Amino acid sequence: MGVVASAPAKVILFGEHFVVYGEPAIVLAMDRRVYVKVENQEDNTLHVRSTNLNLAACFEKNRFRIEQGDPKEARLRFEPVRQVVERIIEEHGASVGLNVEINSTVPVGAGLGSSAAVIAATIVAVSTLLNVKLHKEDVFRLTCEAEKVVHGASSGVDPAIATFGGIILFQMDTGFKPLDLRMDIPLVIGDTGVERSTKAQVEKVKSIMEKYPQIAQLMMNTVREIVLRAMDALKENDLETVGSLMNVNHALLYGVGVSDESLEWLINAARKAGALGAKLTGAGGGGCMIALSNEEKLDRISEAIQNAGGRSFKARKTDEGVRIEQN
Amino acid sequence: MGVVASAPAKVILFGEHFVVYGEPAIVLAMDRRVYVKVENQEDNTLHVRSTNLNLAACFEKNRFRIEQGDPKEARLRFEPVRQVVERIIEEHGASVGLNVEINSTVPVGAGLGSSAAVIAATIVAVSTLLNVKLHKEDVFRLTCEAEKVVHGASSGVDPAIATFGGIILFQMDTGFKPLDLRMDIPLVIGDTGVERSTKAQVEKVKSIMEKYPQIAQLMMNTVREIVLRAMDALKENDLETVGSLMNVNHALLYGVGVSDESLEWLINAARKAGALGAKLTGAGGGGCMIALSNEEKLDRISEAIQNAGGRSFKARKTDEGVRIEQN
Repeated sequence: MGVVASAPAKVILFGEHFVVYGEPAIVLAMDRRVYVKVENQEDNTLHVRSTNLNLAACFEKNRFRIEQGDPKEARLRFEPVRQVVERIIEEHGASVGLNVEINSTVPVGAGLGSSAAVIAATIVAVSTLLNVKLHKEDVFRLTCEAEKVVHGASSGVDPAIATFGGIILFQMDTGFKPLDLRMDIPLVIGDTGVERSTKAQVEKVKSIMEKYPQIAQLMMNTVREIVLRAMDALKENDLETVGSLMNVNHALLYGVGVSDESLEWLINAARKAGALGAKLTGAGGGGCMIALSNEEKLDRISEAIQNAGGRSFKARKTDEGVRIEQN
Repeated sequence: MGVVASAPAKVILFGEHFVVYGEPAIVLAMDRRVYVKVENQEDNTLHVRSTNLNLAACFEKNRFRIEQGDPKEARLRFEPVRQVVERIIEEHGASVGLNVEINSTVPVGAGLGSSAAVIAATIVAVSTLLNVKLHKEDVFRLTCEAEKVVHGASSGVDPAIATFGGIILFQMDTGFKPLDLRMDIPLVIGDTGVERSTKAQVEKVKSIMEKYPQIAQLMMNTVREIVLRAMDALKENDLETVGSLMNVNHALLYGVGVSDESLEWLINAARKAGALGAKLTGAGGGGCMIALSNEEKLDRISEAIQNAGGRSFKARKTDEGVRIEQN
């Protein structure tokens, strides 16, 4: 029995880091999803398990009990889940016991938005099980609130992608705008396996911005122009131009110091294997890269990334946001 | 007997490629020189030999005779030498036979300005041997003219460095301006050993300029700002800032497609070994890179470049232009 819901992970196609300073970014939902299964539980407790992270814990009123893995990590990862579950139980009216099982098909903590996807899928699975009616806008809002618990702040990008899917243009002051693009965007994602701190990478960029404000401003203007040009190319279904603009965007990220050897290695392998373009995605300094490719070269690029020491998988844009898989 | 003259090779510290589009560049003379030995010869012929290139040939009036190596290459390399020698013999008044021996302590054809250094040193050695009085301005002018034979056109940068030494700011429309900088600039030069075509690299940049004019313009503006900021840092003897600006300049060159795996490999090795900054120098796509370093890390960086598969040598700015070594 139980309900299974899923939500898509995200990749940043253009504009990471510079987005913090007000420049636009293009972000897409990919057809790699996080699955959350929710079942009723006899006792009045909340059990949460993440199969990927080998973590399991039980929340019972104000008590937290670790069942598998590191207690500190479990608490950090599961706290937003607990929070949204409690909100929905409140709406439901009567207290219930629940068993939540999380299964991610993307690397966790690699800048691919898996935490927002977990939350959105949990909200939809639990509300469906308990017959609490929620609009997608409610799911988005609740996901944003829970994301703030994890990250301190949320631009709303990850929750928007997890909830609505598709591809969006995001800008700090104007928020996000869904782009109605019917084209396919075939990608290979490469995970360096190198753990990075988003905060440290953001600090690196900040120090360049402070030390060389004029130079940094011109680089930001360049990225803005790249994003605008990329929007046109996406509308015209011109993958080749999108790819070459990804390369230029990557050079600017490299210029503000957020690429590293592990990323360059995979990016270079992807380009040599025939990628139309390749860049880091997310915070950089390790983490993930993406390569854009024609259909026929996807496998070759995926293999090249693996031969260069990364883990890789193919992905493409999906217009499917959070959804029920099984009820 | 005979006369030996020498002239310095050059490195571009900032601004290559973008200089073609009117942006400024900073170029310096390094203490690696090309040596030219000239002796009288009994018969009325001109013998030219390059020990580095394993080339030797004889010019006798309108006849060319190969003595060692590829005839086509010898003709190409030695033609400007023949030309300046004839000009000086004309000034001298009576025909003489000469033996010219060229010895370069920098890689030839690697973008380090060895051809201009060969010409400038030849002019000074021959004019000294034949008692033809020339001012440095004459040497510069004759070197420029001969460079045009080799490269079709000459910005005058390589002849200026070979003749006058030191460090110059160069800009297409305003020409070159010597910078009176007393600071030391300790460098490690790394040669990828990968042959490149300057023309092909220039074409790569041109195609980006044509396809993405707005983006390219912003990148050029960024490089201009980097050069201006670097001038200040050089005046303030702030090597650390010069180094980090070299890194940003390199990122923009990477962005217009003129870096390659062989360069990235050496640049990365130099940075990991503690370089303050590293970038390609010259046309890119192979060729040479430079790393700026504090005194104590020069050896470590040089070694790291060699371990990464490059040939490396230490170099520093020299204020000594073309000069007589032995008379």
